[in-house]
Amino acid sequence: MEILKQRILAHGKNLGHGILKVDSFINHQVDPQLMSECGRELARRFATIGATKVLTAEISGIAPALMTAHHLGVPIVYARKHKPITMPDEVFLTLSPSHTKGVTVELIVSPEYLRSQERVVIIDDFLASGQTILGLVRLAQAAGATVVGIGAVIEKSFEGGRAALAHLQIPIESLATITDMSDGKIVFAV
Amino acid sequence: MEILKQRILAHGKNLGHGILKVDSFINHQVDPQLMSECGRELARRFATIGATKVLTAEISGIAPALMTAHHLGVPIVYARKHKPITMPDEVFLTLSPSHTKGVTVELIVSPEYLRSQERVVIIDDFLASGQTILGLVRLAQAAGATVVGIGAVIEKSFEGGRAALAHLQIPIESLATITDMSDGKIVFAV
Repeated sequence: MEILKQRILAHGKNLGHGILKVDSFINHQVDPQLMSECGRELARRFATIGATKVLTAEISGIAPALMTAHHLGVPIVYARKHKPITMPDEVFLTLSPSHTKGVTVELIVSPEYLRSQERVVIIDDFLASGQTILGLVRLAQAAGATVVGIGAVIEKSFEGGRAALAHLQIPIESLATITDMSDGKIVFAV
Repeated sequence: MEILKQRILAHGKNLGHGILKVDSFINHQVDPQLMSECGRELARRFATIGATKVLTAEISGIAPALMTAHHLGVPIVYARKHKPITMPDEVFLTLSPSHTKGVTVELIVSPEYLRSQERVVIIDDFLASGQTILGLVRLAQAAGATVVGIGAVIEKSFEGGRAALAHLQIPIESLATITDMSDGKIVFAV
């Protein structure tokens, strides 16, 4: 997606160690128009797979997932990292290692909003190692739901996430694929 | 906002102790169409105050704030509760007591995205005690920015937030005002 790539080149920062700072338009400050365009494009790519729900993880997945769900016309559920008091005691819970933070986080979804007949598209801001998305896949599977697609705004292909998800044999879409961030570079797949 | 009130009556749950569960359309599962309508209405009410940015707090403020910002055509910044590695060491930070969780959380914004010339509209899912919004006001003031409006999807007027914010002498808008949740009731202001 050309406008996204241009924005990453203009305003993204390669902080080293594979960390891409996009805090000015995706992760802390958010450009709603760009995010809506990203959501529109992801929804277009998943238009024919019969999705009934978008699933993501708080926090930074919410903006792209909300906009994708808006364009698909389906609800979004975001997995919580801490169980709020409004959630029932019986939940779907999985552990997910956070690559960038070096910790393991819980991902929690209420069974009220993820059911066995659902067809789920998982959307996140980044596809890097794929661990967060695999955690969301486990939650959907625990609910008996079917994961029918995976979408990310930015893919860092050198971190192997696509290979880690390949066994699912479902469409994996990303809007900007970065193949190399060594030596301060930001190189997109052609 | 009538469709919001109808949704709260149909799908909201009064859990007692002033806790309103709206996890099926605002706080865990989100209805993007409803949220877009809420954002459109908040944007309409703040159309003439010259806002340059929407400020909210992660997590549950993100969806309504993103949609409001989308309709206003300005960026949104969400205050983080934990400093990510992409954020500079020098930040705006304030402490905010969380009424429902009984803990104090940090609210952190990078000076990169909140500047002295900004005119800020603060948007959150709930206006209850007003403590989270007051924390966001302090962050904006620390940046030298001007808070020009405050908007919430749902106001629980019996928790006193509006009075706690009155000294700011700026417009405070909410889309559904609940005056009474005693004895399992959900009573809206007329």
